[in-house]
Amino acid sequence: MTRQDTTDAVLGEPVAGNGLLHRRLFLTQGAASLGGLALLAARPSNADPLEIPGWTRAPGTNMSPYGQRSHYEEKVLRTVGGAPGVVGNGVSLTPHQSLHGTITPNSLHFERHHSGVPDIDPTSHRFVLHGLVKRPLVFTMDALSRYPTVTRIQFLECAGNSGNNFSPMPTQAPVGVLHGLMSCSEWTGVPVSLLLDEAGVDPSATWALAEGADAAAMSRSIPLEKLREDAIIALYQNGERLRPENGYPMRLFLPGWEGNMSVKWLRRLKIGTTPTMTRDETSHYTDVLLGGKALAFTYPMGVKSVITNPSTGLNMQGPGLYEITGLAWSGAGKIARVEVSADGGKTWAQAALTDPVLSKSFTRFRMAWRWDGGPAVLKSRAIDETGATQPTRESLVTRFGERRNYHMNGIQVWSIAASGEVSNVYA
Amino acid sequence: MTRQDTTDAVLGEPVAGNGLLHRRLFLTQGAASLGGLALLAARPSNADPLEIPGWTRAPGTNMSPYGQRSHYEEKVLRTVGGAPGVVGNGVSLTPHQSLHGTITPNSLHFERHHSGVPDIDPTSHRFVLHGLVKRPLVFTMDALSRYPTVTRIQFLECAGNSGNNFSPMPTQAPVGVLHGLMSCSEWTGVPVSLLLDEAGVDPSATWALAEGADAAAMSRSIPLEKLREDAIIALYQNGERLRPENGYPMRLFLPGWEGNMSVKWLRRLKIGTTPTMTRDETSHYTDVLLGGKALAFTYPMGVKSVITNPSTGLNMQGPGLYEITGLAWSGAGKIARVEVSADGGKTWAQAALTDPVLSKSFTRFRMAWRWDGGPAVLKSRAIDETGATQPTRESLVTRFGERRNYHMNGIQVWSIAASGEVSNVYA
Repeated sequence: MTRQDTTDAVLGEPVAGNGLLHRRLFLTQGAASLGGLALLAARPSNADPLEIPGWTRAPGTNMSPYGQRSHYEEKVLRTVGGAPGVVGNGVSLTPHQSLHGTITPNSLHFERHHSGVPDIDPTSHRFVLHGLVKRPLVFTMDALSRYPTVTRIQFLECAGNSGNNFSPMPTQAPVGVLHGLMSCSEWTGVPVSLLLDEAGVDPSATWALAEGADAAAMSRSIPLEKLREDAIIALYQNGERLRPENGYPMRLFLPGWEGNMSVKWLRRLKIGTTPTMTRDETSHYTDVLLGGKALAFTYPMGVKSVITNPSTGLNMQGPGLYEITGLAWSGAGKIARVEVSADGGKTWAQAALTDPVLSKSFTRFRMAWRWDGGPAVLKSRAIDETGATQPTRESLVTRFGERRNYHMNGIQVWSIAASGEVSNVYA
Repeated sequence: MTRQDTTDAVLGEPVAGNGLLHRRLFLTQGAASLGGLALLAARPSNADPLEIPGWTRAPGTNMSPYGQRSHYEEKVLRTVGGAPGVVGNGVSLTPHQSLHGTITPNSLHFERHHSGVPDIDPTSHRFVLHGLVKRPLVFTMDALSRYPTVTRIQFLECAGNSGNNFSPMPTQAPVGVLHGLMSCSEWTGVPVSLLLDEAGVDPSATWALAEGADAAAMSRSIPLEKLREDAIIALYQNGERLRPENGYPMRLFLPGWEGNMSVKWLRRLKIGTTPTMTRDETSHYTDVLLGGKALAFTYPMGVKSVITNPSTGLNMQGPGLYEITGLAWSGAGKIARVEVSADGGKTWAQAALTDPVLSKSFTRFRMAWRWDGGPAVLKSRAIDETGATQPTRESLVTRFGERRNYHMNGIQVWSIAASGEVSNVYA
């Protein structure tokens, strides 16, 4: 199955088994000839390719105050899932199979709600900072909007993302269904540390309770150290005000930590000395271990990557040169490198990373691959700047069993059949 | 008017006249106490701030396949302008007064169309690369989508952006109306250099004609060197497929150059040895000089900045600490620094720049300012990595007169009255 076509210099040097090519093919534009792609673009045929199409023959539509997608793209949607008969408890999943780059459009950012999306009037909303502080404070939107802000591009990932890959048999579904509880945005907001300073936190304080204004009153305990380090109260997402399903008019945002803790529709932070042991940090969002006990306070999201193309449903279109591409991220910082294998993990090659590589953000990776039309097994593994390496599914299952619902950062394996069909496999 | 409150150590050291404070206030979160902001957040009153609001008392709405904004934000719109009675020739302007960060949401990206927005079926669209090439090529969307891609966050600015500031009297309008023909997105597409290599460009070739599939058949001549350097055929914008008004299904994107050349709805590139002298590079998109002659081929957009808040309509709310914030960018590369003055240009201080500072991209800057309630004149000036400094309006008018419609990168001046009202002034 391994193919080392060292004679095909036109396509660059193979760097790992089964047709993986050197990443410089993507780093030095135009430096490498891509002769092998010529089959994709056709020569002009008898039918004149410069014939004027219908849409050039008459004026188009006017400018508009608020743009929408092409109707040809309306099938690109979040997949919605929920508990039947329960209002507002469920998920909607980002369709990563249809997206590219690193930013997730706001309309397609994933959702995980526990009692629906509240319709909050920003002029009535109040945020309260209280508990073990010298000066309890109440913030209106107008007041909070006067504070200094920061802007950062960072991912948000639900603790339960990819959890289906713990199940005994691999599910065949698009990559956005398997791994759609993650998105990445440019967030702008007020550093929580500024507000803590202003309230005057008691030296004995170590924890805060964050509570949302939704009907679930989503409540999580946050170590004060994290709030001081890099937490913000986010007011803008990808340039515009937060969307309702992302916490309008304000949410807590804890870079790199499980999404549930970035409490949406934030209405208060209560400073204290212990975790509150709320429902959503005891009966949920804990990691059930092999013996039945549960691990709590597992906050940072592990180093992870997933190939988004090829993936289930994005099948191969005949032998030839392909771009393998995907996303990598880590709750601990920047991605140091991503390695890709086309032979099931026997050999690996380094993928090209898109600049800028940002901390706790999606990093798009790309790999050149000449598929010879035979069976192949694709894997990607990310390594972050702390040296942490993405584990295999097998190692996670061995350690935690198959009952763990959260923190599945195991390597995603795609099997490619000679027919070109792509499947989710455990291998 | 100059205020040097050196005793107010709580607020940090003033670094320039009329209350400008050191940028480290924004660079080191929590390092500086912001005691002066305490007036913004209220102490809890008799009315219990933790009273449960109505929207917490009942479940909210369910998850949705494609999200929309809060109805409280529906007033944030592009301002549409056009020639009366002419279909599809005009502009719509990004409302920068309501946005923050650096990314422009796709629904609010500026528009400049010459004959409306065509409704293109991506399966029927063809892109042709022909002229002085060994192998003329025809690309379907499927074929082009197989090519290696790159992703970059970069601005797009219409050559006519800010042109109103050439007029004899300053216009009083929101910053998004004065400077709304600019936006910034994450663009993903195929490097043009790869396609040129594949077609085999004749060594004698130096220019290309780019033509759009709109009814205006927008046509511009592009130096081949720029196409090789960093041009892409963009397929995705902020993660999703291009919007129709941004060239769906594909557009040329020339980083840092006047927006009009990044031809939307791209249908062909014809390689040749001379510029074509099309309508839109002769009768339009040339810079009329004092003597009546016009300067052609003025492609790169100059180094520029604008304070977005405060700005016309975003008036001051009484004396106290404020964040001055705005955008800076340059067609020549990265922003090196942005300087802000609160005393009409007598003294300047350096603003904090938001990481990452990217080439040919919006850079958000921030400056701490304690407004004493007196009259003030705010300016910002950007300096890019080539050393180019943003000019004054006066220097541009002296050199080019007031008939130049394009490439207005003069310093925007905001006058602040004791009432807190902000005005556009030439000073």
